[in-house]
Amino acid sequence: MTHDIYRHMMTEAGSPMTVTVSPTTIEDLEDGQVLVEVAGCGVCHTDLGFYYEGVRTRHALPLCLGHEISGRVIAAAQDMTALLGKAVVVPAVIPCGECDPCRAGRGAICATQFFPGNDDHGGFASHVVVPGKGLCAIDEELLAASGVDLASLSVIADAVTTPYQAILNAGLKPGDLAIFIGIGGVGSFGVQLAKAMGAHVVAIDVDTERLEGIRDYGAEHVIVSGEDFRAIKKEIRTWAAEREYPMTGWKIFETSGHPGGQALAVALLGYDAHLAVVGYTRAKIEVRLSNLMAFDATMRGTWGCLPEHYPAVVGHVLRGDVRLDEFVEKFPMSQLNEVFSDLHSHTLKKRPVMIPDFSPQPS
Amino acid sequence: MTHDIYRHMMTEAGSPMTVTVSPTTIEDLEDGQVLVEVAGCGVCHTDLGFYYEGVRTRHALPLCLGHEISGRVIAAAQDMTALLGKAVVVPAVIPCGECDPCRAGRGAICATQFFPGNDDHGGFASHVVVPGKGLCAIDEELLAASGVDLASLSVIADAVTTPYQAILNAGLKPGDLAIFIGIGGVGSFGVQLAKAMGAHVVAIDVDTERLEGIRDYGAEHVIVSGEDFRAIKKEIRTWAAEREYPMTGWKIFETSGHPGGQALAVALLGYDAHLAVVGYTRAKIEVRLSNLMAFDATMRGTWGCLPEHYPAVVGHVLRGDVRLDEFVEKFPMSQLNEVFSDLHSHTLKKRPVMIPDFSPQPS
Repeated sequence: MTHDIYRHMMTEAGSPMTVTVSPTTIEDLEDGQVLVEVAGCGVCHTDLGFYYEGVRTRHALPLCLGHEISGRVIAAAQDMTALLGKAVVVPAVIPCGECDPCRAGRGAICATQFFPGNDDHGGFASHVVVPGKGLCAIDEELLAASGVDLASLSVIADAVTTPYQAILNAGLKPGDLAIFIGIGGVGSFGVQLAKAMGAHVVAIDVDTERLEGIRDYGAEHVIVSGEDFRAIKKEIRTWAAEREYPMTGWKIFETSGHPGGQALAVALLGYDAHLAVVGYTRAKIEVRLSNLMAFDATMRGTWGCLPEHYPAVVGHVLRGDVRLDEFVEKFPMSQLNEVFSDLHSHTLKKRPVMIPDFSPQPS
Repeated sequence: MTHDIYRHMMTEAGSPMTVTVSPTTIEDLEDGQVLVEVAGCGVCHTDLGFYYEGVRTRHALPLCLGHEISGRVIAAAQDMTALLGKAVVVPAVIPCGECDPCRAGRGAICATQFFPGNDDHGGFASHVVVPGKGLCAIDEELLAASGVDLASLSVIADAVTTPYQAILNAGLKPGDLAIFIGIGGVGSFGVQLAKAMGAHVVAIDVDTERLEGIRDYGAEHVIVSGEDFRAIKKEIRTWAAEREYPMTGWKIFETSGHPGGQALAVALLGYDAHLAVVGYTRAKIEVRLSNLMAFDATMRGTWGCLPEHYPAVVGHVLRGDVRLDEFVEKFPMSQLNEVFSDLHSHTLKKRPVMIPDFSPQPS
């Protein structure tokens, strides 16, 4: 059987993406690969980095972007037929599982990892060809009971799992103080996860509407960001002291991907602090590195999330600990160029998820 | 019995230190305290920070600086008499051992830790009063057999143990690639420790004489530092690839405490890298923080070393894995002001250790 794969192709930075069609048959799948019919694909700031900032994709252009994919397996190579028909989330980073770093639990730096929309065509498409290994199969009874649809689960592939991995890397424990800077497409899920994992959560953003929106979803305290970093640190210290929350060992999650947010995150460092760099920007900031020494503190970056942690995150979503639909907005995939533009100009408040709406070509 | 404690007192930043005398009896010791007759006290860049850069000491001035102390316990409070007569190294950071962070193994951030020459009078003195808890007693038979004298052991209290703690924090394993930037009073011991712990060590410094000096003490490869960071990174990659040494997971130790060294350390970050900030400078540098994310990498600061690790470090020294005398230069303590000045102007190649030479006042 032949499947026509429609893809929004990026040809060069900033040029409108245009749709191409590639007929694909099961013979085109290599060992280990499956064909996923896309239910939804989230738009991430990493995509904007490729599209607007000239960050280079590992696969040469033209390339179909998109790495936050959920869907259903409709064809599979012989060794992957167990996945046929399954609803899945496709991890944004799929390590090979066999190299030395993978065997040492460091799949994030696997040199042959597969990153859809970067190593090969991604999810702004009707279908995507991906390695079956590492896909996270979804229990459809639990999914139906949760009221969440498969398309919304797409954001798990990066926006929800990346802060989860950062939380694990930070060693977050119940009772810890967690501070999220940037309550956008990533931070809003990070706040909910940290709360579900027992932390006291402070949310910081420049946008008061976003801050009000996160109060009911795990943020015990919200702070409007500004340039007086000392005042913000003092406010958190006072608030924490009044509640007998920890004054040291703060877990700080920078998810804004803006230099101002990063500078604030660094200014909030204190004794035994852990700063997780989750948001991306090419900009540099000024840092007094020796503060890490004086505070015996750590800054750590997180690249994706190991597929082995996806079931735990899906569990949080299906149990309702982490709400997706309040923080996701769906668009027909034909509006992809407009959504990129709106996300880039900060006019979207929620994580956009693109829903395929390709019209079959007349045969 | 009364002991006259002679101390070189810092009265204000940059003013020559002058000697005072304080008669002290055993009744002046509080519970838990001992009186140590100083054998030697190393001079650290942290002292220069207090003296030249206006870094504030936790105890108000006037204060006797000096936190790299070895000596002999000559008086002890009733609960510490077991230490009487013992040769000891006084850790630069002595945690209380009883608070929540201490019980969680995070004594580095203990709020009531004792840091001689910062929290109270330090080791540029004939004697020092310190908590007995945490002192590292030295086996004098092994010491005599090693040929190292007690005064030289003073540098263990910071210059040797701090890179050791940084090595532990970095999770260094046999076969790892370790890069030391700055082969001065701290880096020269760090190189030897990393080698003794099984790493392949690259040493980088601006000083060719120091680099040649470290070749016989654990550095497999030495590089003269410069401004072309890319060339340095490429040189290490080529050298490592030829030997099939690790190309990822580099452990980078910044011990120079100079902004240029820190900038180089950041430029050397790669996949799964760990950058240990061991040297201190108040200067800020520009950092693309998101590289930590792209590399899934870590930057971590280290404040001192837990007293529980001192015996292992002393073991390395007494077995000869880590040589002190080639990297230490002894001066009479009466030359303290001159040695501060020479260390500040970078005319000393070795870690200075001050040997008390006070003349008893005529009674």
